[in-house]
Amino acid sequence: MKTHRLALIPGDGIGVDVTDAAMAVVRQAAAGRFALDTETFPWSCAFYHETGAMMPEDGIETLRRFDAIYLGAVGWPQSVPDSVSLHGLLLPIRKAFDQYANIRPHRLLRGVEGPLKAEGFDILCIRENTEGEYSGAGGRVHPGRDNEVATEVAIFTRKGVERILRFGFDQARARRGHLTSVTKSNAQKYSMVFWDEVTRELAAEYPDVTVSHMHIDAMAAKMVMAPQDLDVVVASNLFGDILTDLGAAIQGGLGFAASANICPDGSGPSMFEPVHGSAPDIAGKGIANPIAAIWSAAMMLEHLGEVEAAADILRAVESATAQGIGTRPGSHSTDEITAAVLAAMATCPNAPSAI
Amino acid sequence: MKTHRLALIPGDGIGVDVTDAAMAVVRQAAAGRFALDTETFPWSCAFYHETGAMMPEDGIETLRRFDAIYLGAVGWPQSVPDSVSLHGLLLPIRKAFDQYANIRPHRLLRGVEGPLKAEGFDILCIRENTEGEYSGAGGRVHPGRDNEVATEVAIFTRKGVERILRFGFDQARARRGHLTSVTKSNAQKYSMVFWDEVTRELAAEYPDVTVSHMHIDAMAAKMVMAPQDLDVVVASNLFGDILTDLGAAIQGGLGFAASANICPDGSGPSMFEPVHGSAPDIAGKGIANPIAAIWSAAMMLEHLGEVEAAADILRAVESATAQGIGTRPGSHSTDEITAAVLAAMATCPNAPSAI
Ligand SMILES: CC(C)[C@H](C(=O)O)[C@@H](O)C(=O)O
Ligand SMILES: CC(C)[C@H](C(=O)O)[C@@H](O)C(=O)O
Repeated sequence: MKTHRLALIPGDGIGVDVTDAAMAVVRQAAAGRFALDTETFPWSCAFYHETGAMMPEDGIETLRRFDAIYLGAVGWPQSVPDSVSLHGLLLPIRKAFDQYANIRPHRLLRGVEGPLKAEGFDILCIRENTEGEYSGAGGRVHPGRDNEVATEVAIFTRKGVERILRFGFDQARARRGHLTSVTKSNAQKYSMVFWDEVTRELAAEYPDVTVSHMHIDAMAAKMVMAPQDLDVVVASNLFGDILTDLGAAIQGGLGFAASANICPDGSGPSMFEPVHGSAPDIAGKGIANPIAAIWSAAMMLEHLGEVEAAADILRAVESATAQGIGTRPGSHSTDEITAAVLAAMATCPNAPSAI
Repeated sequence: MKTHRLALIPGDGIGVDVTDAAMAVVRQAAAGRFALDTETFPWSCAFYHETGAMMPEDGIETLRRFDAIYLGAVGWPQSVPDSVSLHGLLLPIRKAFDQYANIRPHRLLRGVEGPLKAEGFDILCIRENTEGEYSGAGGRVHPGRDNEVATEVAIFTRKGVERILRFGFDQARARRGHLTSVTKSNAQKYSMVFWDEVTRELAAEYPDVTVSHMHIDAMAAKMVMAPQDLDVVVASNLFGDILTDLGAAIQGGLGFAASANICPDGSGPSMFEPVHGSAPDIAGKGIANPIAAIWSAAMMLEHLGEVEAAADILRAVESATAQGIGTRPGSHSTDEITAAVLAAMATCPNAPSAI
């Protein structure tokens, strides 16, 4: 039996609750199929208060030994600025392991009511995850004075743009054959014109994929007006960030939005996390919706080659939501939703007989 | 009787049709109230083909003599790249006259069906219009090579940030007293942290305005999940661009999205334009929805002090849409919708008796 080594970083706030929930589900899905070797790291804002850092100096090296990383949520803005917590844990992991493809699926789970009248959409957003508008370059001069200036430099490399677009083309080929590349080349004439050019170059290699070019403003409108027309969407770090929160919204909220930070060449572990944050307002109340976290765990198992286990989990999640469990904020506790998923998985026809 | 001098730039595609429609409505609203002195400029992509420029060299100086500019739509990407047409006409006008406040109202007109289940929202988006992510700074090195790099530099000045935020605070004070400032300071630590700081400084001067800070990703989700919670929204050039297309979407589409590019200190004329573009796919068919254009013209009259005329126009527009006229793509022609608005205005109880 294969063993998967998982690094767990529950993090802050509801990150802890939903990681517990997701791991209970993963363990049940593993039974009779594969073994798990997990280690939990307490890296978080509390850890920062104790040690002065979000993770130890050798944190990245420690994580490198694992097959995958599972992260709950990072951040506790009341006591640690996001610029410290995120730049000290989440963002360095994405960059250190070259997890350049941030993948986020957007569709309505059965039983979930979204805010749109439209329903039948199935979108896969691919967000560039290592450079672009979040490169961290820029500066400020004359702080506090009349003539103060702040700059933020978006940096796009050919390697960075090519590889994320290629990843997008490959996903489109494996799905419905349509790729929408999102830029703003009518107003950002260096970075986005470059992105458009590379898209056109690669399109020649994928004659079986139809490509649409859209501007981010029009695309945001499209996500709301005609999401059913979209298949795979590929976008820069910032544009992908915005579109995937919008995707989360149209699928009923952050409680349902799963994500994977993939290092496609396998040179480092990939990381899986729900899109939601630590949600200080509901932390510790046992009412966080674990579905996004469980779905993210299923993406992790799929990435690790456990395709059947992943499918079982998703089926069980939808069998719970179809019964109205976890579909409305506050209707069920974290434990109730988790229990419903576990129960659905136990009775699932495809479950291995060993359970 | 006061005379308002208007520069009309119908521009490309449906820009021509909707400008005609809007001006017919403005003329009727003017009758008995004020005089109009209009001059039409043929600056457009066709003009570019004839002359090699989107407008004459003294175009800006010519426009400066007017009280307001009305623009239909610019761009015809099939024959002139947007980077030429927009950077040769629309964007230089915004910058030359320091039209730093781009104002866009988002609410559902009576009778219009939006894509959201939510209905009772009334949002005023204020977009910074002269700097930030659309400063046009940046560059490319090693074009076409493996190590190619493109940069796009977002530039924020204290003057630029302060004045747009102040404008937002003033608008919030005149409305429901709530301002949402949109940034991404957890990932863009120079520009957006700066914007947040200035927001906090100004908030002290406006104790009567409550301020929310939101990240652009969460904000995009909020526009879809809880738009009724929003009052005045203030954002950078790019973020405002995205949010206002999203605003257009939730109000039923670009056919309903009006906008004003305001030079608040009056040092130059302000410009009014529907948010939609030239729409090559329906250009020349007589089916463009003129409502966004008419609403933009009403914003122009309000700006020129003709508050009653502006209110009459909006009332007439809603009386037309309440009857289902112009509420669905293709249901009525441009002329039919315009005629319905004119008719509603003629029978409007507030219309001056001179009509
Ligand atoms: C917390 C923040 C830095 C992060 C991001 O923008 O990458 C989050 O919004 C996300 O989408 O994963
Ligand atoms: C056409 C384009 C340059 C323009 C902009 O982004 O400013 C448009 O999208 C708008 O919103 O007015």
